[in-house]
Amino acid sequence: MSSSLDSHTSQTWGGRFSEATDAFVQEFTASCAFDHLLAHYDIQGSKAHATMLTACGILSAEDLQDILRGLDQIDSEIMAGDFTWQVALEDVHMNIEARLTDIIGDAGKRLHTGRSRNDQVATDIRLYLRAAITRIRAQMTRLRSGLIDQAETYAGTVMPGFTHLQVAQPVTFGHHLLAWNEMLVRDDSRLADCADRMNVCPLGSAALAGTSYAIDRHMTAEALGFKGPTENSFDSVSDRDFAIEFTAAAAITMMHLSRMAEEMIIWTSAQFNFVDLPDRFCTGSSIMPQKKNPDVPELIRGKGKAACATLPSMMWALDTPLCTASSAQ
Amino acid sequence: MSSSLDSHTSQTWGGRFSEATDAFVQEFTASCAFDHLLAHYDIQGSKAHATMLTACGILSAEDLQDILRGLDQIDSEIMAGDFTWQVALEDVHMNIEARLTDIIGDAGKRLHTGRSRNDQVATDIRLYLRAAITRIRAQMTRLRSGLIDQAETYAGTVMPGFTHLQVAQPVTFGHHLLAWNEMLVRDDSRLADCADRMNVCPLGSAALAGTSYAIDRHMTAEALGFKGPTENSFDSVSDRDFAIEFTAAAAITMMHLSRMAEEMIIWTSAQFNFVDLPDRFCTGSSIMPQKKNPDVPELIRGKGKAACATLPSMMWALDTPLCTASSAQ
Amino acid sequence: MSSSLDSHTSQTWGGRFSEATDAFVQEFTASCAFDHLLAHYDIQGSKAHATMLTACGILSAEDLQDILRGLDQIDSEIMAGDFTWQVALEDVHMNIEARLTDIIGDAGKRLHTGRSRNDQVATDIRLYLRAAITRIRAQMTRLRSGLIDQAETYAGTVMPGFTHLQVAQPVTFGHHLLAWNEMLVRDDSRLADCADRMNVCPLGSAALAGTSYAIDRHMTAEALGFKGPTENSFDSVSDRDFAIEFTAAAAITMMHLSRMAEEMIIWTSAQFNFVDLPDRFCTGSSIMPQKKNPDVPELIRGKGKAACATLPSMMWALDTPLCTASSAQ
Amino acid sequence: MSSSLDSHTSQTWGGRFSEATDAFVQEFTASCAFDHLLAHYDIQGSKAHATMLTACGILSAEDLQDILRGLDQIDSEIMAGDFTWQVALEDVHMNIEARLTDIIGDAGKRLHTGRSRNDQVATDIRLYLRAAITRIRAQMTRLRSGLIDQAETYAGTVMPGFTHLQVAQPVTFGHHLLAWNEMLVRDDSRLADCADRMNVCPLGSAALAGTSYAIDRHMTAEALGFKGPTENSFDSVSDRDFAIEFTAAAAITMMHLSRMAEEMIIWTSAQFNFVDLPDRFCTGSSIMPQKKNPDVPELIRGKGKAACATLPSMMWALDTPLCTASSAQ
Repeated sequence: MSSSLDSHTSQTWGGRFSEATDAFVQEFTASCAFDHLLAHYDIQGSKAHATMLTACGILSAEDLQDILRGLDQIDSEIMAGDFTWQVALEDVHMNIEARLTDIIGDAGKRLHTGRSRNDQVATDIRLYLRAAITRIRAQMTRLRSGLIDQAETYAGTVMPGFTHLQVAQPVTFGHHLLAWNEMLVRDDSRLADCADRMNVCPLGSAALAGTSYAIDRHMTAEALGFKGPTENSFDSVSDRDFAIEFTAAAAITMMHLSRMAEEMIIWTSAQFNFVDLPDRFCTGSSIMPQKKNPDVPELIRGKGKAACATLPSMMWALDTPLCTASSAQ
Repeated sequence: MSSSLDSHTSQTWGGRFSEATDAFVQEFTASCAFDHLLAHYDIQGSKAHATMLTACGILSAEDLQDILRGLDQIDSEIMAGDFTWQVALEDVHMNIEARLTDIIGDAGKRLHTGRSRNDQVATDIRLYLRAAITRIRAQMTRLRSGLIDQAETYAGTVMPGFTHLQVAQPVTFGHHLLAWNEMLVRDDSRLADCADRMNVCPLGSAALAGTSYAIDRHMTAEALGFKGPTENSFDSVSDRDFAIEFTAAAAITMMHLSRMAEEMIIWTSAQFNFVDLPDRFCTGSSIMPQKKNPDVPELIRGKGKAACATLPSMMWALDTPLCTASSAQ
Repeated sequence: MSSSLDSHTSQTWGGRFSEATDAFVQEFTASCAFDHLLAHYDIQGSKAHATMLTACGILSAEDLQDILRGLDQIDSEIMAGDFTWQVALEDVHMNIEARLTDIIGDAGKRLHTGRSRNDQVATDIRLYLRAAITRIRAQMTRLRSGLIDQAETYAGTVMPGFTHLQVAQPVTFGHHLLAWNEMLVRDDSRLADCADRMNVCPLGSAALAGTSYAIDRHMTAEALGFKGPTENSFDSVSDRDFAIEFTAAAAITMMHLSRMAEEMIIWTSAQFNFVDLPDRFCTGSSIMPQKKNPDVPELIRGKGKAACATLPSMMWALDTPLCTASSAQ
Repeated sequence: MSSSLDSHTSQTWGGRFSEATDAFVQEFTASCAFDHLLAHYDIQGSKAHATMLTACGILSAEDLQDILRGLDQIDSEIMAGDFTWQVALEDVHMNIEARLTDIIGDAGKRLHTGRSRNDQVATDIRLYLRAAITRIRAQMTRLRSGLIDQAETYAGTVMPGFTHLQVAQPVTFGHHLLAWNEMLVRDDSRLADCADRMNVCPLGSAALAGTSYAIDRHMTAEALGFKGPTENSFDSVSDRDFAIEFTAAAAITMMHLSRMAEEMIIWTSAQFNFVDLPDRFCTGSSIMPQKKNPDVPELIRGKGKAACATLPSMMWALDTPLCTASSAQ
């Protein structure tokens, strides 16, 4: 996960350093490759921050106008693929700030008043993940709707119910499909809980100890659609619980898709022959023309297994005390 | 996880078998070693089930009275350590049913009308886990209360705030402790969501396809404190999502305790020397008398790491289609 | 994993402590529950160490005779189940030393000359694991021999060969069984490599920096069947690589058994009906008398999945720098 | 992992299919993105295969000459970045075969005589991994050589030796660095064992049941630097043990680097101040100019943790019986 637990800029922290950063190190530590996903949300956050600074009398109305205009232009450039990312500028925040200063001059630097890259990235990731959960839930609703339609069609189609892969009792195919639907109902509910719990705003926590500027944290929180500001500045910049909780919820969802996929693989075997997958979702074999391989369910199983394994690696990466919080997170 | 996806009894399913079960296999497949944790909840579930059967006119009032008396006696025997578990009876359900029949005669067998060991074990685990979450949340409230007290005491004690283990900005020790409290607030909220989502009753799903008896699923659900009955019988007997969700929430909690523990280890080093742990929580060394080892935080770190690793193994164990659902879960 | 990275004894390190160890902490940090598995190997190691001390003129011949006699008696007591483990004595080493001093007097304490519990436990674990690998390899040879016998019997039995669970090309059942044998051949070879690589002796590394006594490390190494002593004392007391390597090799083996088990589950389904498992290895169902459940392969699959998950948790538990090496490992 | 457990070609298996493959499915199942890493090794394997076919009288000398010339040209094209990968051709094998037929005509198709994509990809991965291990071992030798040089320089520099992050006994810095070297010595030995065990050739196993052509498996094995051909055709096309074993060995190596990295992080804290990392390997902070963050060791720790987590996901992905072996592996 990208992070920037110090407000360092390649220009400004050079003072006490007697050597330039090694080129390999620059590349090794840069987070642009991931951070560009956050760009749109970083700009959203900066617009809310600038507006608040002006409302609190910290930034002039003129600066604000320039900043909003410049940020909108950068947003367009990034969406159009016209933005040049520079590894030497380390991360998404510095890339955007540098470009903003190009466009509107020194006002671009005043945007950073009363914040740090630490609370900035914590905000960006929350905005990004909140949007992602909305997208995923919409896709799951589509899938559930398809399952329910099929369940209605096959409400009276009798099939063997199995346990231990041994025939147990007759059920209907519709009943079986609705069992799948139940799994997805729980998944959706878990994602909703995750989105709600993470929906608080770290802005104002600065590097870790807050800021001495008289900012209004409730105003930025509201502007960005959060329930309110976070409670503790130190926790705010190091908390990544929401990422783990999301990954856990997503992994359970993938496990459910994997369970469905394996059932389809068994059902399409010549020995079971319960369902026939459309040709356009399968692949075949030149030297064995009788074959029709269920590649798509197989790949879903593979991806499901990989999703589960991500979880402990995230937990371990984040199992580090507040005092060692670092960009490796 | 213990399960019993068929209502088999060593007595009754013997019919088509030409050989007795191998002794090693009997021990290998028996789940008594884990299942005894469920005994108290199994008895609770059976009492609610019997009461409902009588209310629905399926079981006589006399049978009910005998069953309730017999189950209460068994509950006392188990708590007193006077119950003899028999591996040959496979699991907690069969052990209790056999003992019940010993005590009250054939009425003990009529208790199993309209249910299966599959919906029975699914209910037991939910009751067990619901009670466990209540206990854990109480302990966490106690820990948070201690942290808040200490935070008040040290509200004005200035200490260095670190990132990357490098001194960053001054904070107070109270502020640091309240960052820990925030982690636990989220943990508690996740456990509450988990307990709420799992709080539906699988009873009545029977082996997988429900039962033809005219039972009242709402009545048992209410008697056992559930929000209501589950929606789909096939899903009900194979769903163990709640166990994964609980494990994920517990693993994040353990990760937080581990983060706190490592901070304490660093703070007690001679080089940092920020805190002094009481002697009664440390151990020493004979040949190096200057040493005072922070064993307790070290062990908490170890246990935290192990908790995280449990998660993918549960997911994989449960990543099996409905048709292969089995006692290995 | 049990460890004791300081030669502390509850009697001797009490000097600078103003409080006794908390009872809960004493239980929380004690490792007797695991350590008793090491007792026999701890005694082996102590006998070799004492013999070497005498050969080097550090221990008298009389002391040696008493120590060897006392240790043999303790070994017998433990095997006979007559040994009383005391949690207050923390670990296997202290329990045995205390009992030895009971039996032979102060000579029992002189046994600890020139060593520490750190090099002692590192030696114990290696001896234990070396013996375990020998046992496992013998069992695997037995399994392979059974597979090869069956392969001969069914060398001409034609069956469909599958990929993607779709019929591909005809093979023989014997050929299929020999594919299983190949997996086990590699497993055996990995275990042999692991046993060979770990077969070096940490004795003489003491707490971490060696000892000032003029001991003979080659002599103890040879007496215990090691290839020779380890190279670096600091690495010797913290190295647990062999445990990870063994777990990885064992997990691959379990994965192979799990692959075979799933194949048997599919083969015994009514739809495939390729093989018929003996009744004594299956269980049934009272309300579904047609069922014969393949419990044993199902449980093997479950255990295989759990074995794989152990691995990262061990790695993470051991991912701690030399300076923080601790009993949590 | 890429695989192709049927010799299917988009042209040839179309016969019994009534619909074209869905475009999303085509992209979802294509493995070009990974497979291009195998291209050079795929060509090596094809050259050896073609040469053997000619030696056995199955392919004409003219065809062989054309094939060798065409493959060399394709190898150059790929290295120069002039090769156009087509997702519609699914994988590296089909992409190369199609291009070969472009260049030399129908002889390009005859290259596939007596083999399948299944034994082909199994060979490619082994060749690729063997070369990767050679590269990694060279880098590790370089690192060890640096450690040993530093250990000599600091052979007499006394520093505190720690356990539990508590000062234990004095050691030298050189001794500490040689402890690190010992870890890498074991890592190198594990990689050597892995490379040796995997060094057998699957060519000739074809789809899973071998081929009826009178090919010479020893000849291709020798030409490609293998110890010899594999023993069982069914096992040969599904065995990916070597990938797991390599990942386990690599994960232990990463764990060692991570242990060293954390030690450096602790040593560079102001409180310890044991070492000073060169500026060119660190980053700073604008608003906290006193800071010099050890980013590189932090990132190494992060990558180490991720490497360990890969392992169970590979094991689970490969925990599938021979009969379901599929492209998801």
